[in-house]
Formats: sequence, C-alpha cells, structure tokens
Amino acid sequence: MCASHLFPAPGAKAALEEGTLLTPRFGTDGLITCVTTDAETGELLMVAHMDAAAFAKTIETGEAWYWSRSRGELWHKGATSGQIQTVAEMRVDCDQDAVWLKVRVAGDGGCCHTGRRSCFYRRVDISDGRPTLALT
Amino acid sequence: MCASHLFPAPGAKAALEEGTLLTPRFGTDGLITCVTTDAETGELLMVAHMDAAAFAKTIETGEAWYWSRSRGELWHKGATSGQIQTVAEMRVDCDQDAVWLKVRVAGDGGCCHTGRRSCFYRRVDISDGRPTLALT
Repeated sequence: MCASHLFPAPGAKAALEEGTLLTPRFGTDGLITCVTTDAETGELLMVAHMDAAAFAKTIETGEAWYWSRSRGELWHKGATSGQIQTVAEMRVDCDQDAVWLKVRVAGDGGCCHTGRRSCFYRRVDISDGRPTLALT
Repeated sequence: MCASHLFPAPGAKAALEEGTLLTPRFGTDGLITCVTTDAETGELLMVAHMDAAAFAKTIETGEAWYWSRSRGELWHKGATSGQIQTVAEMRVDCDQDAVWLKVRVAGDGGCCHTGRRSCFYRRVDISDGRPTLALT
C-alpha cells in the first residue's frame, strides 16, 4: 500500500519538527518504528513496526495494529491471543520516524509471544567487558 | 564493520529467546533499533539505531553510542552537546532485534536536537477520525 494515499507527504524540517500535521516518515522498507509502553505503569512492552496501513488502522480503531515482519502481513495485535492493545495516548518523535503508543492490554495482560508481560525480560550484564543475558 | 567480528551469530529460536548469550540480530541495513529511557523517571527519551560497532562501544564504555542514519556515521551521543548518556541498565527483547537503554543524561539533561528533554514532545490527537499533532 502506498503511504501517500493514507498520510500527507513529509514537509520541510520546520513543519516536520514543529508543525501540527502528522506526516510520518516511513523507511525505504515502508515501515516506521513503534515503541509500545503500558499506559499505567510506563513499562516498555515491545518494539514493533507499522506500515502505513497499520498506522492508519491504529488511528481509525484506537487499537494497536502493526506490520509483522516475520509473517509479512498486517497484524492486529491480540486478534488471536486476546491481548488487544487499546491506545490511551499516541505520540510521534521530532522527525516523525518513530511512534510511541501508550496502551492498555486486554486478555491476560501479556504482550510477548513467549508468554511474558514485556518482550524485554532479559538484562545485559557486563562482567570483565563481556556481556551475558540474565532474566530480570 | 562486520557484526560477526563483534558478536556471536544468532542461534536457533530457543537460544535466541531463552539463552544467556547476547547475539543481536542486526537488520539487512546492519542496524538494530534502540529505545532509550530516563533511568530515574522512565520517560521515553528517544528511539535511535545502533550498528554492531555502536553496540560494542556502548558495552565497552557504558555510554550510549548510536549509528547516525542522517550523517552516516558512528555517533557518541553528547560528545559535542555534553548530553552524554550513561547506561544504568541495558536490556534486549525476546528475539534480540531491539535494545533498551536506561540512561542518566549529563550536561543540561536534554536529549532532542530541538532542545527538548525528550524527542516525543508531540501527541497525536484524533478528532473526527483525523489526526493532528499537539505539544504535550
């Protein structure tokens, strides 16, 4: 799907950074990065990607839609798991190439396909300059 | 720089998701997404990208290094602005294609090149199905 059918083309730097028009800048792969946090706790739940259609559906429905890079398809988060994400607030960053969703999670409240609440369940510990992963 | 010189190659799904080995999955562009939050407040400060060298430098120095896509160069955040980001905690997500840095910001405490503390200073408001941006 062509992003230009769903969102206005990005303008110059001043409009992009200080304007009131939503003109998301999708990458050459047609995707924009989305950071999703829990609206109540602020916890980082996941990082995912949206194509223009997913971003438009999120705006239209008030629920999080992503583009699944692994499956290569539009992804209504929670459609099968029940872990629907209702958007409490949406933000964009300075140059409009990243989106931030603050969400309330339905179903069992989980987010990660491994069954955890957040995808970021491992900390990088550094010992003698060498990184290892540890469960948080 | 070849990622394989700095990090082990990603293993199979079980090792990737449940293992203790840091094996970041860089995209076809050689980059991994990094989410940076304030270690004290939890505030989302920025979304940026790291190549293998930036990720390795972050681990080595305990300060945030990114790959600047706009300038096409390794970027020691704060080297010119004084807004050095000291890493308080680092995490990776389930499939190791995203990094989360919790940082303490030096200098004036800012992060965004527009002068704001966070890059996410605009909310997407939706009225009659149409999105507009508003300062938070």
